[in-house]
Amino acid sequence: MPEGLRRIALGVEYCGTRLRGFQKQKHDPHTVQETLEKGISAVAAEPVTLVCAGRTDAGVHATRQVIHFDTRALRPQKAWIQGVNTQMPFDVRVHWAQEIPAQFHARFSARQRTYRYLIHSAPTRSAQASSEVTWTDHTLDLSAMRAGARYLIGEHDFSSFRASQCQAKSPVRRLLKLDIGRVGQLIVLEVSATAFLHHMVRNIAGVLMAVGRGDYPAEWVGEVLAARDRSAASVTAPPHGLYLVDVEYPPEFTLPFVEPGPLLVPLPLGGLPTV
Amino acid sequence: MPEGLRRIALGVEYCGTRLRGFQKQKHDPHTVQETLEKGISAVAAEPVTLVCAGRTDAGVHATRQVIHFDTRALRPQKAWIQGVNTQMPFDVRVHWAQEIPAQFHARFSARQRTYRYLIHSAPTRSAQASSEVTWTDHTLDLSAMRAGARYLIGEHDFSSFRASQCQAKSPVRRLLKLDIGRVGQLIVLEVSATAFLHHMVRNIAGVLMAVGRGDYPAEWVGEVLAARDRSAASVTAPPHGLYLVDVEYPPEFTLPFVEPGPLLVPLPLGGLPTV
Repeated sequence: MPEGLRRIALGVEYCGTRLRGFQKQKHDPHTVQETLEKGISAVAAEPVTLVCAGRTDAGVHATRQVIHFDTRALRPQKAWIQGVNTQMPFDVRVHWAQEIPAQFHARFSARQRTYRYLIHSAPTRSAQASSEVTWTDHTLDLSAMRAGARYLIGEHDFSSFRASQCQAKSPVRRLLKLDIGRVGQLIVLEVSATAFLHHMVRNIAGVLMAVGRGDYPAEWVGEVLAARDRSAASVTAPPHGLYLVDVEYPPEFTLPFVEPGPLLVPLPLGGLPTV
Repeated sequence: MPEGLRRIALGVEYCGTRLRGFQKQKHDPHTVQETLEKGISAVAAEPVTLVCAGRTDAGVHATRQVIHFDTRALRPQKAWIQGVNTQMPFDVRVHWAQEIPAQFHARFSARQRTYRYLIHSAPTRSAQASSEVTWTDHTLDLSAMRAGARYLIGEHDFSSFRASQCQAKSPVRRLLKLDIGRVGQLIVLEVSATAFLHHMVRNIAGVLMAVGRGDYPAEWVGEVLAARDRSAASVTAPPHGLYLVDVEYPPEFTLPFVEPGPLLVPLPLGGLPTV
């Protein structure tokens, strides 16, 4: 990194409903990246380019997205938090800011990402939080979903769970955790991996919901995985139930703690009731 | 009730953010009442007028509003639920419908109303659910709030907690319960009374938040009550933290159960942790 540049990490939360995903687009200013870059550049009084831990799709939310940028600007921590927040719309918020060594990279230093997928299973769709959960009028069999989930834990070729437009070189990923629990009226999937393929969590959610409805037995999840073919799986679950809730970095980069959330899930990571 | 008329009760949920309150207005069609009356009239194929258990203000939500109407139309239960819901915007939902004796009146038969008021106390406002909770960057002292709340339990003249435009004949109301608990990142007030004055819950929330912030001691709540003067209290808390979550009727009118909610509070009535 050239002399005089500082690397700043930010913890960012956003509601994806109105936004067109994280990544900047040529013809649409309503992305998380462009919204944040504009606000941060205004505070820095120079153009700033962001790197994020995980690019989320349109409609997908994040409670703990981590980003970094390099700047010549010397600003108090408050400027990178409250200062940037005064430039943000209601659905994007910076929760913490920290100067960090140049060895830190929001994307490449991340060792683990955790997502939560929220399903509201009820006869009638709720009038509240309609774009913050995925609604189904089916009753879901959580035991069957958990039995299906077990086929996915570990290192596998996840080609069957990968979007056709996925740009990753390898389809192999290591799934570290896939818990399924009930939190009030919601069914919550909590899934951790070193990294994810494009649409991987939504494709996993789609397959497990099909098992939960009884459309397929739990063993089918193993067959889908073994097929290494996207057409073997079922529909991609909608984006609006999905939240990026945590990114883990090596312990030498001590980053502030925030609740994984969202507000709809008042439980710590790993705290889903799984019985 | 004239012969040939049937009385139908509905359980209704709505998100108040976009709506201008329950009651129909001359120059604004975006009220809960007008939205529901249009949908129900379409299903009944005749004009229908609604009566509700509790008129909520603009921005206030409900998870279990109860309404009734009279109609000559004979329709299966499904028509009053799914049929009406196909006419509803995303933020209004009918959860149940039931034909009910003419002695039932959604407003006058109600023996008890319960509201929940949701406060998000955190250094930075959340990017999620921003119009479904009231945010404060103050830390609130729940013990002080509970000590203050005790002054309000029982039958009192609540003039100090009554909006100037309140049309009730008497300012006397009987407060049956006022619990304060922490649910995840939220502080939740759960308050029950036989009936409420206009703005009464929001004025109670405003006074208790002032005590929670340490602006006043708990005893001040008793002084505010004794003053019987609206100017003795503090500001009315914002509408968007407020939810009508339950209405209780005499047991002879057996109405379907729904979770009190909202989704943000996954606990049964009376289930707030109060220690």
